[in-house]
Amino acid sequence: MNALSDLQATLDPSRRSWVESANDSTNDFSIQNLPFGVFSARQNDARRVGVAIGDEIVDLAALQAAGLLKLSAAKTDVFARDTLNDFIALGRETWRSVRVQLSALLARDTAMLRDDAALRARVLVRQADAKLHLPVHIPGYTDFYSSKEHATNVGSMFRDPKNALLPNWSEMPIGYNGRASSVVVSGTPVRRPNGQLKLPDQERPVFGACRKLDIELETGFVIGAGNALGEPVACADAEAHIFGMVLLNDWSARDIQQWEYVPLGPFNAKTFATTISPWIVTLDALEPFRVAQPVQEPAPLAYLRHEGRHAFDITLEVTLRPQQAKRASTIARTNFRHMYWTMAQQLAHHTVSGCNTRVGDLMGSGTISGPTDDSFGSLLELTWNGNKPLELNEGGTRSFIEDGDELTLLGWCQGDGYRVGFGACAGEIVPALK
Amino acid sequence: MNALSDLQATLDPSRRSWVESANDSTNDFSIQNLPFGVFSARQNDARRVGVAIGDEIVDLAALQAAGLLKLSAAKTDVFARDTLNDFIALGRETWRSVRVQLSALLARDTAMLRDDAALRARVLVRQADAKLHLPVHIPGYTDFYSSKEHATNVGSMFRDPKNALLPNWSEMPIGYNGRASSVVVSGTPVRRPNGQLKLPDQERPVFGACRKLDIELETGFVIGAGNALGEPVACADAEAHIFGMVLLNDWSARDIQQWEYVPLGPFNAKTFATTISPWIVTLDALEPFRVAQPVQEPAPLAYLRHEGRHAFDITLEVTLRPQQAKRASTIARTNFRHMYWTMAQQLAHHTVSGCNTRVGDLMGSGTISGPTDDSFGSLLELTWNGNKPLELNEGGTRSFIEDGDELTLLGWCQGDGYRVGFGACAGEIVPALK
Repeated sequence: MNALSDLQATLDPSRRSWVESANDSTNDFSIQNLPFGVFSARQNDARRVGVAIGDEIVDLAALQAAGLLKLSAAKTDVFARDTLNDFIALGRETWRSVRVQLSALLARDTAMLRDDAALRARVLVRQADAKLHLPVHIPGYTDFYSSKEHATNVGSMFRDPKNALLPNWSEMPIGYNGRASSVVVSGTPVRRPNGQLKLPDQERPVFGACRKLDIELETGFVIGAGNALGEPVACADAEAHIFGMVLLNDWSARDIQQWEYVPLGPFNAKTFATTISPWIVTLDALEPFRVAQPVQEPAPLAYLRHEGRHAFDITLEVTLRPQQAKRASTIARTNFRHMYWTMAQQLAHHTVSGCNTRVGDLMGSGTISGPTDDSFGSLLELTWNGNKPLELNEGGTRSFIEDGDELTLLGWCQGDGYRVGFGACAGEIVPALK
Repeated sequence: MNALSDLQATLDPSRRSWVESANDSTNDFSIQNLPFGVFSARQNDARRVGVAIGDEIVDLAALQAAGLLKLSAAKTDVFARDTLNDFIALGRETWRSVRVQLSALLARDTAMLRDDAALRARVLVRQADAKLHLPVHIPGYTDFYSSKEHATNVGSMFRDPKNALLPNWSEMPIGYNGRASSVVVSGTPVRRPNGQLKLPDQERPVFGACRKLDIELETGFVIGAGNALGEPVACADAEAHIFGMVLLNDWSARDIQQWEYVPLGPFNAKTFATTISPWIVTLDALEPFRVAQPVQEPAPLAYLRHEGRHAFDITLEVTLRPQQAKRASTIARTNFRHMYWTMAQQLAHHTVSGCNTRVGDLMGSGTISGPTDDSFGSLLELTWNGNKPLELNEGGTRSFIEDGDELTLLGWCQGDGYRVGFGACAGEIVPALK
C-alpha cells in the first residue's frame, strides 16, 4: 500500500459515490470532501463522530464497531465521543488513514457497505434526521484581522481614509484573543447583547440593547497538532499543525465595540457569541483548491516567509432572511483567496513568542472582504456604518441586523463536477433581555 | 448543626492548630486560611488535591479514603484528580463543608488525626517534599485593567498626561481576553519572548528578543459557579460565583506590546506566559479582610452597582533576585484595596452581554498600582519606562527584567496573630531562543 497515492486517489475528481446525493455537483459533501463532525440522531441521541457524504452522515463509531474502519493508533476508542478532540489528537497519519478508508468504502464500485442494507441502516444516518453539535472542544480561540480590504475599510470609517491601514498591519497578522466559551454551532439562536452605548448627544453612556448588531464573515482553522510552550511553529511547518477549516461568524455589536475597544481591544462586543459551521473540512480535502496568496509588499520578516501557495479558492456568501420572509437575500459574495495573511503565517506569528497551542484551538481569519462594494464581509462595510442601507429581495432594507433575522454564511470550493463545501453557518437573532 | 455558625468558627482568630507551624503569625497558611491546591510528592507522584496548613499539606484524597472527610454531594470522587475543577463544580455548600471539617480536624484540641501517627503519615505531606501544580484547568482567562493609578500612569506615559484616563475607563471595568494555554504555576521558568520590535531609528520593525520585559502585579479570581450563555450574573450575586483568589503575574513584553496593540489590544506581548500562585485562597477565608472599595465617581450604571464592602485588604509585594544574588530586593509594596473596580463588578460586566463563564475560568485584576512611586505594580511604572532605573540591594540596577532574574509576587492578609497568605508566585527568566 502506498499511503501517498491512496491519499491522492481520494482527490480524484472522477471518483463518484454510491450515495447518489453526493454526486450532485452542487452538494457540499462530495466523496472528495469527507468532512468531520459530531452528531446525534432521533433514534440514538448519543453524540458521536460522523463524516458527511451527500445528504447522509457516516457514523464512524458504528462503522468501527462493524469492523469496517481500522485505526493503527494505540488508542482507537475515539469515535463514540462528544467531540473530535480525541480523534484529532491521534495525528495526521490517522486522519489520512480514515479519509482513505472512507473514500474507498463509499466509492461507487465498492460493494461492502453499498450492498448490505442491514449494515447501511446501522452506519448511515440521514442529515435530515440528525442534530449537529459543536464539533470540537475549543481550549482557545484567537481571531485575526487579515483582510487588507476589511482593515482598510474600517480604518477609513473610524480613523483616517488617507492612512487607513495602520503601520503594523502590513508587518504582521494582527490578532487578538477571543472568548472560547461562547463559540456555538450553526443553528444556535443568538441573543442580541445588552451593554454600554455611547450616544453622540449624551455625555455619559447608557445601558441598553445593541443597536448596531453585525456579522463578520470569516473562516476558522482548527489546530490538529499543538506546540509546547516556548517552542514556536515555523511558518514552513505550520500547515501540518492544521486539522481543517470551518466557516465562522464573529457576531459583533458595533456600538458596544466603538465605546469599549480603546486601548485593550474588543471584549463584550464580541464575547456574546461566535457561530461556526458544524463540519470541519480537512486541509487534505482543500488541497486541489490551493492558490497563490496576494503579493505581500513589503516582504514579510523572515519568520513569516513561506515558499509556494498557501491561499485557497473558497467561494463565500452571506445571506439574510427576515423572520417573516420566505426567501433569503444574498447580501455579500467574496472569496477566501483575497486574504492577505495566510493561515500558516497566522500560526507562525501566534507562536513566535513561545505561546503554546492545543488540539482543538480555533483561529479565526478575521472578516473576509473583497475589493468590490458587494464583496464586503460585514454590514458595517456593506452599509458603510449604516449610511447606505441594503435593499433586501424581501423584507425591506437593513442597516444592521434586526431581531428575527437569520444570517447564514456559505462557503465551498467548486471542483470539476463536484463540490467541497462547508454546509451552512447560520444563526437567528432573538431579542435582548429586558 | 448550624452551617453558618460552623463556617463562622473557621474564622475565629483564636483558633490554633496542632500543626504548630500554622500558628506562626507570619506563616501564610494558618488554620484560618485552608487554601486548596494540587500537588504530588516524591513518595507518591500522582497529582491530587491538597490543602495547605503551616508547612504541611493535607492530602484530601488520602483523608477521604481514611473516612475522615465526608461529602454529601452525589459525586464524591473529586480529590484524586489532576485539577480542582471536579471539586469546585460541586458547589459552595461542598467547599464550605470541607472547610468546616478540615478546620475542626486540624484544631489544636481535636485528637483524631493529631494523635494517630500512622494516619498522619498517610495524610500529611511536608510542603518541602511536594511539587505544586497548576491548581485548575482554566477554560478561559480574562484580564481586567481596574487600577486607576495604573491606568493613569500608563495613559500619562503613552498618551496625554493631562487626559491620562480614557473616558470609558471610569464607566466600566475595561477587560480583554487573555490566553489560557500559557498560564503556568509558580516556579515554572519563563522564556524571554522573541517578536517584532519597532526601534525609533528604523523605518521597519526588526525581529528579536524582547528588550523591555516586565511583570504585572495582579491578583486573579477563579470561577466556582459558571453562568449559561445569555444569562448575565447580577453584580449583587457575583461573589457567590467566585471560588477564590490567587496571585497572578501577567508577564509583559513592553516593546512588542507597544508596536502590536493598536487597534485590537495586546497579543504576543502577553501570550507567552502568565504565572499564578499554586494555592487558591477561598473568598470564605478572605471574609474578615473585607473593606470598602474606593468611592466611584461618577456613580456606575445600575448593572455595576452593589451595596456594601467588596474590596479586600491584601498586602502585596514584589521582589527581584538577580541570578547570582543571595538576597532578593523588594521593588514594590501595595495593597489590593486600592483597586477601583471590584471583582463583583468585573464579573457582572463580563457577563452582561450574555457571555458565559465556566468553572475554573480565571479573571485577572489588572496591574495593581498604589498611589505612591514605590507602590506601582510594574517596572514600566516603577522605572517610568526605563528612565529611572531601580537600585537593587544586590545585583546592580534594573530598568526592565534581565535574564536570570527571579521575580516573586507575595500577598497576605494579616489577622490578629495569624496570616491568610497566598504563598509565592515566582518565575525566573531564561534567555530567548536564538
